[in-house]
Order: sequence, then C-alpha cells, then structure tokens
Amino acid sequence: MSSGSTMILNMDPSILAALREDITSEDVSTNAIMRHPQQGKAELICKQDGILCGLDVFARVFELLESGAHFETTYQDGDAVKKGELIGVIYADIRTLLTGERTALNYLQRMSGIATNTRRMVDILKGTKTTLLDTRKTTPTLRIFEKYAVKVGGATNHRYNLSDGVMMKDNHICAAGSITKAVQMAREYAPFVRKIEVECETLEQVREAVECGTDIIMLDNMDNETMREAVKIIDGRAETECSGNVTAERLLEIADIGVDFVSSGALTYASPAMDISLKNLTAI
Amino acid sequence: MSSGSTMILNMDPSILAALREDITSEDVSTNAIMRHPQQGKAELICKQDGILCGLDVFARVFELLESGAHFETTYQDGDAVKKGELIGVIYADIRTLLTGERTALNYLQRMSGIATNTRRMVDILKGTKTTLLDTRKTTPTLRIFEKYAVKVGGATNHRYNLSDGVMMKDNHICAAGSITKAVQMAREYAPFVRKIEVECETLEQVREAVECGTDIIMLDNMDNETMREAVKIIDGRAETECSGNVTAERLLEIADIGVDFVSSGALTYASPAMDISLKNLTAI
Amino acid sequence: MSSGSTMILNMDPSILAALREDITSEDVSTNAIMRHPQQGKAELICKQDGILCGLDVFARVFELLESGAHFETTYQDGDAVKKGELIGVIYADIRTLLTGERTALNYLQRMSGIATNTRRMVDILKGTKTTLLDTRKTTPTLRIFEKYAVKVGGATNHRYNLSDGVMMKDNHICAAGSITKAVQMAREYAPFVRKIEVECETLEQVREAVECGTDIIMLDNMDNETMREAVKIIDGRAETECSGNVTAERLLEIADIGVDFVSSGALTYASPAMDISLKNLTAI
Amino acid sequence: MSSGSTMILNMDPSILAALREDITSEDVSTNAIMRHPQQGKAELICKQDGILCGLDVFARVFELLESGAHFETTYQDGDAVKKGELIGVIYADIRTLLTGERTALNYLQRMSGIATNTRRMVDILKGTKTTLLDTRKTTPTLRIFEKYAVKVGGATNHRYNLSDGVMMKDNHICAAGSITKAVQMAREYAPFVRKIEVECETLEQVREAVECGTDIIMLDNMDNETMREAVKIIDGRAETECSGNVTAERLLEIADIGVDFVSSGALTYASPAMDISLKNLTAI
Amino acid sequence: MSSGSTMILNMDPSILAALREDITSEDVSTNAIMRHPQQGKAELICKQDGILCGLDVFARVFELLESGAHFETTYQDGDAVKKGELIGVIYADIRTLLTGERTALNYLQRMSGIATNTRRMVDILKGTKTTLLDTRKTTPTLRIFEKYAVKVGGATNHRYNLSDGVMMKDNHICAAGSITKAVQMAREYAPFVRKIEVECETLEQVREAVECGTDIIMLDNMDNETMREAVKIIDGRAETECSGNVTAERLLEIADIGVDFVSSGALTYASPAMDISLKNLTAI
Amino acid sequence: MSSGSTMILNMDPSILAALREDITSEDVSTNAIMRHPQQGKAELICKQDGILCGLDVFARVFELLESGAHFETTYQDGDAVKKGELIGVIYADIRTLLTGERTALNYLQRMSGIATNTRRMVDILKGTKTTLLDTRKTTPTLRIFEKYAVKVGGATNHRYNLSDGVMMKDNHICAAGSITKAVQMAREYAPFVRKIEVECETLEQVREAVECGTDIIMLDNMDNETMREAVKIIDGRAETECSGNVTAERLLEIADIGVDFVSSGALTYASPAMDISLKNLTAI
Repeated sequence: MSSGSTMILNMDPSILAALREDITSEDVSTNAIMRHPQQGKAELICKQDGILCGLDVFARVFELLESGAHFETTYQDGDAVKKGELIGVIYADIRTLLTGERTALNYLQRMSGIATNTRRMVDILKGTKTTLLDTRKTTPTLRIFEKYAVKVGGATNHRYNLSDGVMMKDNHICAAGSITKAVQMAREYAPFVRKIEVECETLEQVREAVECGTDIIMLDNMDNETMREAVKIIDGRAETECSGNVTAERLLEIADIGVDFVSSGALTYASPAMDISLKNLTAI
Repeated sequence: MSSGSTMILNMDPSILAALREDITSEDVSTNAIMRHPQQGKAELICKQDGILCGLDVFARVFELLESGAHFETTYQDGDAVKKGELIGVIYADIRTLLTGERTALNYLQRMSGIATNTRRMVDILKGTKTTLLDTRKTTPTLRIFEKYAVKVGGATNHRYNLSDGVMMKDNHICAAGSITKAVQMAREYAPFVRKIEVECETLEQVREAVECGTDIIMLDNMDNETMREAVKIIDGRAETECSGNVTAERLLEIADIGVDFVSSGALTYASPAMDISLKNLTAI
Repeated sequence: MSSGSTMILNMDPSILAALREDITSEDVSTNAIMRHPQQGKAELICKQDGILCGLDVFARVFELLESGAHFETTYQDGDAVKKGELIGVIYADIRTLLTGERTALNYLQRMSGIATNTRRMVDILKGTKTTLLDTRKTTPTLRIFEKYAVKVGGATNHRYNLSDGVMMKDNHICAAGSITKAVQMAREYAPFVRKIEVECETLEQVREAVECGTDIIMLDNMDNETMREAVKIIDGRAETECSGNVTAERLLEIADIGVDFVSSGALTYASPAMDISLKNLTAI
Repeated sequence: MSSGSTMILNMDPSILAALREDITSEDVSTNAIMRHPQQGKAELICKQDGILCGLDVFARVFELLESGAHFETTYQDGDAVKKGELIGVIYADIRTLLTGERTALNYLQRMSGIATNTRRMVDILKGTKTTLLDTRKTTPTLRIFEKYAVKVGGATNHRYNLSDGVMMKDNHICAAGSITKAVQMAREYAPFVRKIEVECETLEQVREAVECGTDIIMLDNMDNETMREAVKIIDGRAETECSGNVTAERLLEIADIGVDFVSSGALTYASPAMDISLKNLTAI
Repeated sequence: MSSGSTMILNMDPSILAALREDITSEDVSTNAIMRHPQQGKAELICKQDGILCGLDVFARVFELLESGAHFETTYQDGDAVKKGELIGVIYADIRTLLTGERTALNYLQRMSGIATNTRRMVDILKGTKTTLLDTRKTTPTLRIFEKYAVKVGGATNHRYNLSDGVMMKDNHICAAGSITKAVQMAREYAPFVRKIEVECETLEQVREAVECGTDIIMLDNMDNETMREAVKIIDGRAETECSGNVTAERLLEIADIGVDFVSSGALTYASPAMDISLKNLTAI
Repeated sequence: MSSGSTMILNMDPSILAALREDITSEDVSTNAIMRHPQQGKAELICKQDGILCGLDVFARVFELLESGAHFETTYQDGDAVKKGELIGVIYADIRTLLTGERTALNYLQRMSGIATNTRRMVDILKGTKTTLLDTRKTTPTLRIFEKYAVKVGGATNHRYNLSDGVMMKDNHICAAGSITKAVQMAREYAPFVRKIEVECETLEQVREAVECGTDIIMLDNMDNETMREAVKIIDGRAETECSGNVTAERLLEIADIGVDFVSSGALTYASPAMDISLKNLTAI
C-alpha cells in the first residue's frame, strides 16, 4: 500500500540507519559459522491476533542487505491475522536472514502493534460520524512509519508536522494578543493551502474562534457537557476536534456529542508491539 | 549521567533528525505570530508517578535549536518523581520553546517510560542474585536512548548489537553442525574479548554447551523445572540467562531457581510513555 | 525575519554544501598569501535598485566558517535599496572574508533577485483582491530560500511540496475516473488538515469541482472570458486560483475578473540575480 | 555526454535531495488516487526553441524513484530543438511519473536555459579567436549541473572552485604586498599543476603581472582602449581574460581587441529556464 | 570472505567517500578523450610477493561506479601471491576502469600490506600457544578494512572500539581509586557480555588484578623476567596479554614466557602498502 | 598553518567519523569509572625524533568532543622535535581526554610520520633545482590530511584529484589515437586553467608531446640515460616530472639530470607513523 517513492526517499534512510545501529562492524556470530553463501528461507509466523502493518518494510530490510532477497506473502497491510498463522516466507542467503531478522521484526512488530490498537479504536467508532486522528506524539524519527500504521489501522492522519499544519495553542494566542489576531496573522503568513486550527479551552474562546473564521476548532480537555455546548455554538461553521483523555471507554460518548474528529496520542506512544517471529530457517 | 561524548557523537544526529522530521520548512504557527525574539521560560511538569530519564536529551533539543537555551533542574536521571511535581524550568526564546516542545517531550516521555517500567521489575528482583537484562528488541535507530533508559532504571544491558556480542542461536548451531563446533568457530573467529553465548532449548544442549566451554548459556523458553535442572548441570561453570515469557509475576520464581540473568524484550518494546508536559510558558 | 530554527535545521545544510562545493580541499589563493589570521572587514554594496532578501543567509556563510564573524547592518529583508548604497559591513578574519565572499553573494543575489521581481508584481496587484502565489517550479534543493524570498517580496506561498498540499491535475482525475471521485479519494486518504485543490480546464469541470466540495479550484490556462464565467459559476463556494501565462501585463485583467489567487512560476525560475558586491576589504 | 561516474558520485546526491525536498512524507495526491502500480508513459514536449541540456538528469530522476523507469529519445545534450517538437518518451509506473515530473523538469529547464543562452553568446564569437568562459557565480550546490550546461552550450569552463584554480584579486595582492609577491607566494604554495591568474585593473599592474611570470592575466572592467593597450603589453607572454559588463552586444568588440578569453557570470545567474513540459500521460 | 552485509553497511560509505574525494566534479582526463561507452578489461598484476587482502573491496569500487562491472579471479583474500602473477581481470566500461583504478588500488595495496606483514608475524608464532592481536592504532575511519586485513593475515582482533571492550588503563585506575574498585565499577556499569581487561605495570598490580576477578590482564611494557613472574602469579586465573615494543625479533621470547596474547599496533600503523598494479587495459 | 575553513569544511567530517568509529555507543571504560565531570590535563610527549604535523587536528578531536577543551603548545606544524620533548598540554574534562586520546594520536602520528619522511627526502634535494612531489597514492578518504602533511614536510603537491589536474596516461593516449590527439582533446574539453600533463615512456613519445604543446611531460620509469636525453629534447619547452622507483638513494642522480619535479607515492603509502604519546593525565 505504501508507494515505492516513499520507501526509497523516506523509509530507506531509516532502515539503513537501523541496520548500521545493529551492525557497527559485522554480524560476528553469523560470520563466524557461515563462511560461504547458502540460499535459505524462513517463515514469518504470527504469535498474537492483530492487524498486519509494515510488510514492505520487513521485506525491504532484507532487500537492502541483498538485492536478490524476496518475500512471498498473500497478506497485505491492514489484513487481520490470527495467532499461529503463517504470514509469509522470506528467501535470501542464510547470512542475510540471520543478520536482518531482528531489525526487520522490530519495524514490523511496532507498526503492527499500532495498526492493531488503532483498528480496535476505529471499530468502536464505526457507525458514528466521528473520525479518529493521530497526533505528533510519535517516536522521534519514526513518524513516517507510525503515521502510516495509523492509516492502515483505519484512522485518519492529523497534520504531519509543524510545517504542514497550523495550530494555535494557548501560548500562540497569548503571544498574538487574542484568538482573532492569531488567526489573522496565520492567515496572512501561512501558505494559502493551510487550514487554521485553534485550541480552545472555554466556550468564550470557542465563540471568538468561530467568529473570526477559524477552519478547525479543537476542544481541549473539555467535559462532555461543555463540549456539547461548544458543538452547538459552532454549529457547522468550523470542523471540530476533541483532544485529551481519549480512552476507548469514552469514545462513544464523544461521538454522541457530535464532534467531527477525536485525536489520540496513545495510538503512537502506547501501542505495545505485536508478537511476530521468524521461524524454521532452512537451507534450500 | 550520560557523558558529553555520547551526546555529541551518538545522540545529536538522532535529535537533529527528529527536529527535521517535525520541521521540514519552518514552524508556521510560531513564525506567524512571533516575528521577533522574546526570551521566555516554561515549566516541565510531571503528570504521572515514575522514574525520570532523558533530562539531558530534553535540554539538548532546545540547545541545538538555540545555543543560549538552558534547562534548570534539581533532578537527575533515575530520580523518582510524583504526579504534579515541577521537574525543572527551560529558558529560551519563546519561539524555540514552542518549536522544540513536542520533540523534547517525545524523547523524555519514552525514555522515562522505559526507566519507570524497568525500575518496577528491578525492584521485584531486589534481594535476589538475579540481574535483569534488556534485549535487541529496541525501537529502530533509538537503541542508544533505550539501552541508556534501561540502565537508568536499574537493569543491566545485554550486548549492544550484532557486532559486540556473540550469541549462537538454533540456526547458527544448525549451520555449524553442533554446539561444540559453533563455539569453536566463534572462539576462532571473534575478537578475543568476546564472551560466547549459546541459546539452549534442551538439557542435552545445556550439557554440550557447558562441556565445550561456553561462557554464557541462555535457557530459552524452558519451564521452571527444566531450568532448575539446567542450573544444576551448569553448576557455576558458565553464566546463565533465562529468556522468554518473562512477566513481572514470574520474576521471583526465576530468581528462586538461581539463574544469573533474566532478559526481557518488553522493557523496550512495551513500556508506555510517561505523561510529562511543558506548561506555563511566559515571557521574561 | 527568518527564525533561528529554520536556519539551523533547514538552511545550514545547504550553506555548508555550497561551501564544500566551492572548497573541496582548501582556498588555495587565500591560503597562499595569508598564512596567519588578520581581522578585517568588507562592505556590502548595492549595485542595482531592488528589494533585499537573504541578509541572514549572507551573514551565516561567514559565521559557519568562523564563529566570531558578524555582520552589521541597519537593513532587513524586504527593505528597498538603491544602487550605490552601503548595505552593511561584515567583520571576520580576512581569510574568511575572501573564502566566503562568492558563496555568500550567490545566495544573497539570487534571493534578492526573486524578492525584487516578486515585489514588482505584487505592487501591480496592490488595491485589488487578488493575491500573488509562487509554485513548485523552484531551483532543486533551494526551495526553502526561494519560497522565503517570495514571501519577503510580498507574495503568498502556495503549497511547499507534494506532501503538504493536495492538487488533482488532469492525470490524477483521469486515473480516478472523475473529479468527484478524485476529490472523494483525496478527502478519504489525505491528512484531514489538507485543503483539496482541483485543476480545471473547462467550465464543465469547474461545475463538477464546485459541486463535489473542492476547496480550491485552479483555472488552468483559461482565456479571460472563460475565467470570468468560471468565477461566476463558483460564486464564492471555493477559492479560485488562476495559473498559466501570468505576465505582469496581464495581472490587472486577472484581478479585475475577481480570481482570488494568481500563481506564477516565473517568480522563482526567471528572476535574474540582483547585482550586489563585497568591496573595500581592509584589515582592522 | 556526462559520464556515469559523474552522475553517480556528483549528481545523484543532489537529485535525491531535490526529491526529498519535494516529498517529505509522501506524494499525497498521487497516492490518494492510485493505490496500485500501473505502467504508463508520458511525452516530453518542447514549448520554446532552444538547446537541450540535462536529458540524463531528467531520466535519472525517474530511475532513482523506480529502477525500471527508462527514457527514450533520439536527442542528446547540445541538440537544438524547436517549439512543439517531441523530445522523448518516459516510461514508468504512473505514480512515478506523477511524483517525479516537477523535479525532473526543474533540472532540465534550468540546464537547457543555460545551454541556450550560452549557445547564443558562443555563436556571436564564432570565427573569432576569443573563447567564452563561465564564472563561479553559479547557483549554490548546483555548480556541477550548471558548469556542465555551459560546456554543452559550447563555452569553456573557468576553474571549478577555490581549490582547483588560483586567482589573485585586489585583496590578495594587497595582503601579499604586490603582484610579484602574490605570484611568488602562490607559485610556492599551490600544487604545481595550477596556473596562476592575476586580476589587473591598470596597465601598470598588467606590466608587473607579465614580468613576474603570471600565467593568466584578467583585465578587469577595463574600457576597450585600455584593454587593447594591455593586450599589446602582454604580447602573448600570458593568456588574457576579459571580465565585467560582458553583454552580447560588446562581445565582438572584445574579440576584435584580441583577448583570449571572456568570462560571463550571467550565463549561470541570469539565464531564464527554458519552457519544456511533460504531457499526454497514458497507461500502457 | 567478508560478508555482503558488512560491505553494504560498513564499507560502501567509505568507498563512495574515497571516490568523491578523487572526483569532485568529474574525471577530466578520461572524459576528455572518451566521449562514449566502450567495454574493456584490465589485468591486476602482482608486483611484490605477499598476502592478498581486499579483493572484494577492489571489485566493489568499480561496481559502485557501474553496476555491470565485474572482477574475475581465482584468488581469495588470504592467498599468497608472487611477484609477476596475474591476480585477476576486471571488466567494465573503459572510462570506469580509468576512473576507479587509483582508488581501487589504494584500498587493495594497503589491505594487502597489512595482511602480508601480519602473516609474517603470525608465522613466527606458529607452534606456540601465543596469539597475535591488533590494537586500536588504526588509520582513522578505515578500521573496518584494517581489522579485517589483520584477521585475513592470520591474527586475532582485539576489541573493535571503546564501546565493545573494557580496558582499565592507569588513568582509569587512578580515577577509580584502585584496580579493585575500577573492576567493580566496570562490572557494575558495563553490559554483562563484556570481559574486563586491566593494564598492569607492576607485579603488585598484577596480584590485585587477579584477586579481584579481572578477565584479562595486560602486562604493559614489562621486561621478560617480570613478565615471566607475572604469568606465574596469574597462573591461569585470567587471560594474559603482552603489549609494548613487540618486534618480530622479540616474539618468540614472549611466546616462550607463556603469555596468551601479544598485541602489536605496528600491524596497522607501520605496514607498508604492497605493490600491485592494473595493467594492459584493452577494449573488448 | 591550516586555515579554519579547511578544518571546518574538509577535516571535521573525517574527525567526527573517526570518533564515531571508535565510539559506537559510549566509552564504556571511562563512563564506568568517572560518573561526573572533572577538569584535567595531559602531556603530549614526543617518543621519536621527527617533524610535527597535525597539531590542529590533534586539538580539534578534543574540541569537537567538548567545546571548552584547548591545547597549549609552542610548536607549530613543520617544527622538528626530539625524542623526550614535551610537545604541549591538552586541557579538558578527564573523560574527554580519555575518550579522545587514541583518535587524536592516530591522526597526529600518521601526519607527523609523513612530514618526517618527506622532510628527509626534501633535505636530500636541498640545493638542487628539483622539487619533490606527492601522488594520488594516498589513504582513501584521508587525502586532505596527507597532502597537507607532504606540504608541511617541505615538498610540493601534485594535482589533488582527477577533477583538478589532467594527466594523459598510456591508456588515455591509446584511446585518443595519439599523444597529439589526446592533448588536443584535453585542451578542448578541460577547464582552461588546467595544465595538460602527458606520461611518456619513450623518447619518441617525448618528442611528440613537446611538439604538440604539452605543459608537463612525465618521464615514466626511464633509466637515467634515457631521462637525460629526454630532458635535452624537451629543452625547457615543457616542465618535466620523473616518476617510478624514486628512492632516497636515487634522488640526487635524478636532480643531477635536471628534471624539474620528482614524484613519490611512498611519501603517503609507506611512511610509518611517528611515535608520540599522551602521558601524565592529572586532575586540575
């Protein structure tokens, strides 16, 4: 599902860095016992139910170590998989398989963990009009992988970074003087394709934000009642986003209030890795 | 606690990459409303009990953006902190504070999360002779931060990567012909300062490993009874490590068996980030 | 006007690369005749009327070569300057001045050239409701400098790159099946903060685009009459952008038609460099 | 005409940087509407008469994104092309075509613009003994592409950078004490394969330069009469170069004076990009 | 003998940097006289007896410049070769052969020089129980190539760097307070797979080191008599290493004393390059 | 003697790479026993007579690890130093001193070794008209350091690389068709500041080379008599260079023949490192 350009331009540098982190001179154990090339294969086995994500990245780790390596699978990112299932088979020189295994799994397990957790949350919102979003609370330098995993899990991405989205938080508003001034300054300064989002903590702020033409209003840490009132004030004149303390339990209440979007940092900072392993390595 | 050399050589490249990931052209929101420098400060507040880790990294994010930025704190890595406590104050141009905030917190929260989880496990083992270890199941490209966090949490590091430790797993043994041959080949090939570790799944393997002079024997996924038997066979002639399904609940049983080391990948792949935030930004 | 973070994260790598391009081993001429440090200064002189842009970049070239270098000026980016005026004085080791001169001027002259040309176009539009935009037709790897120069010249930036803006051109529409489908697919796929822009060549396309909720409609290479009709059809339900053959002469006609934005690639690919030189180098 | 080594070692890093500048996470528009590979082709059409330059670079952009991409053409760098002609056809996954189009054209249009402008100047000098040169007034980090375009246009390259040519300007001479001393110091210090060039503003300087064995004498901003006198003084004992205010109009006068070389910075800083576009993208 | 992963991850970046060091814009000589591709071959000829090392690196230089280049040889690293022998034949575009020749030979000659010198020393020790080691006195940034050459020569590698081995020198001991404290601190701090080595200059230090459980004791600059006494004291309770003034002449005396390992920095800093050249380039 | 620009642009990247080669995660030994900063100093002691070279590089290693580090010395590059002399004192955090020591010495010892060997050869030529040159037979990626050391030793640099000098060897001549054609093609293709050098093996070639206006004629592997004849043929119409089997013993014979330049690859590939060490580290 990820395109080749993204892999080459934006993922390869990370994958190579990860391999160099794990191999600063050589894979001593493997090189000690295998002095010559020997084609082999190994099976990728699911050890825990979940949603797969990062199959291309998994394969790419081996391809970057050996151009002839290839991964065969009938699964694609976003597919559900059950404990015990054979996900696919990776073919390469056995030395490549041994050397790349841990790095390949480290990506795949983390990405699948995020996709799995995201899907669980998305499923709760199914049938409502509320869309789940991620945040910028991602693992440093791995955002490209994590935002992709969120999308594979079924949620929608919020802005990618500080350069491609405008959000006025309390400190920005304070520095600008008022919400109205902050929005005007952003409108004047930012590339014209940017939507302007403002973080509001009170209904008074919500009123000002909607009046001055804010595109997206974030309702920050409001209780349900206040949020309901805010949605009523906004009345469709801006998109609405709810943030703060978004637990699985609370999702349906938020949806019921009619907020358009709900964002959860936990998708990327608290999803545990999914258990997947490489087994049955054999020469061929 | 981390030395300056490690920061400059091994952490700075990651921090700069993380900042460039978040700012591909500029911080539009901040630059829109703050056209001129304005010194300010912000408070780092703990939102959840835990063990702090990554204070130097947190500070470094701002220092790399502005050489005059500085962080004042009485805490150091490894200190316990309670929800609500003021951890420290960061001083810099307000634009620097706004621009660096998310990246700085992303590192600090993840590292503190690992230290917190590690400390909890280490505390369980207190008073026993068993030492807790990490694994190579770390986040790709962030191993330097995560292994450090494990150490700050009170555990001991296993090998850093494939180049600085030798471990013979089933596939290596299979390729070499036998444990004895694998150990001989490693002894011959590896730098002489390397200890040779062998992963054993059966008592027969344990017997062979100890006979051929293995330095460390990993007891892989054994039940308690088998492990107890293995420790008896080894009888102090090699160091012992237990791996696989290491839960907090099972830790004391393992320690009771008398294994020297117990390794847990979950320390680095399943520790949720700790909740810490930057608040009360003000001009000074 | 540019912030320190942008300089450090996004401009420094280019400046260092430019210096390394010009000095692959050493500045032979300078090192041949100056064996020892000697503080000096040189004057930055305007040789042609125009709008200054890139003063921080000019200074940064010398600062990166020598931490003590500094530039004194009363001008700032965006100021008009006349032929013959003294723009400022740069202080550094004479070797640094000689070594950095050409690279520093190469940036400053190009950026000022763009700002000058942009200002000329912006001035024509003054008093109208039409805003001038740049495009992605920038010099490879120098977009950060050129988009900044466009903004300094008084125009507004279009999207920065393929990742932070969505534009459906004829090929995208063709691949999707229809404008309506393309907009739906983009709405579903893109981060929710993206506005969706569609390039239309006929009035029929304009009608479909406005019906399916497109945020921005680009009127591509239309004659004045057709464009006028398009604006009437859209009737404020989407923002409008005019592109193609945008000459200074035609600008007022376009504005008169009432298009919201007009984009010009020539701002970045056809603005000749402004003539500025470094003179009167003396020891101090 | 450019060799493979130059492409791989000196151009690829720039091309990849340009692509990463344009795609910081992914090409959202393209990925939104094309979820699966689809081979296609597009035509490269000339929109303006000129000299082609950069065809290999154009093709390389797509090849770096997709190893199977290939460009078919009967043209080569340096060929004249007329408005409306089909230059060639590029084949690749349609996603690759859409994603790489702008970057590929940005290089090709700039390089062809320089070659076109250079050819125009070179044609004026045809039949004279004067050779046209470029300068170091190139676009920062793109010198490899621009000097190549100058050569394709039919002119000759001056030194590549500060490391591979020695030029003593007024400030060097001043620091050394005299032209004679500067030339001696350079002769002593520089690699022995370097020719020594001295910039002269007066006939007195010319006399000193020729006496002390200067290899190349640059006649800087001299009027025709003075230059004629300088050439007489030098009398073949050094190569001569004329620089400053070199317009197309003045070229023949300079040639008539008998100067060996004439250098023009405008070739690289004032040549507008040539209009070329990619059209008729179709699936195959 | 070197694995593909090591080449791609740890050697390629050096090789590319070496090529870029030699070709900052283009290979002017080659490109001047060969405007078009022409397949060719050249013979790698041995000009001096020795041990070959770096054949893969030699070939890789050409492969990185041209994917179709290939090297044919019946030799492998570690083989002895005589003056005048044909080592192999390299096939590629003649331009690639001319451009890559010097860089390829620079690696091969240095690596073979080290392997040759090492083999000479190792042969002296043949039949004894003493093993020859290298040190960290390698050429900056070329350690991967030099440590490999030492191994090919028949010696064993000492630690790779400061991160993967622990050695307590006088300054460490002084800072810690005593050998015992230094060893304890290292045992507590270092990854558990590290052996602890202590540098001892006196017999008293040797006694303390062996008592506190040091893994490896380095006998630093001791005369033969003292060393013999040290070995007696240690009595197999630690591995022993001898360092300082290790000449070929003294090797057998050291072996006779019964030291386990002897380390020599001269292997990497004083082995002269071996004479090998590329001859008989012909078109095919 | 080296300028700051060269250090920052061309040496720093190598120094940082060397430090990262030696410290892939951290300096375990030092960090184990020194948990807190402690200012200290250490003495740089000469262990062998020679010519110092690389003092700035030595100091820079520590400065890059700690901005406050500084080196005090009364020596400068090119000074002769005797065994036992105190070269200077380096001040820094003791951890910095321990961590940087080996890398700093590795540069200094190699550079001083080259300068020492070069000086010995240069002294032999003193009083003659023949100048000693280096070659491109340098250590891959360290050319900037080695060519500088050659210059400090008193010799002159040949071309820096393939891009800044033109040399027509037998293969180039063969491909071009004749020496005359090769020189013409180079004259036409190369930047006009390049001197053209031709490698000649026979007197016939020498005659052709001098006739067609070659700037430098290299007399390749000729015996003394042939060389003498060649010099007579050339008769000052081109510069002459002698290459091949240039031993210290043969230098005066060559000088006597009257060749202008003699080049020796051994200066950079066979100069053993000079013995220098860091001693007496103490806290202050």
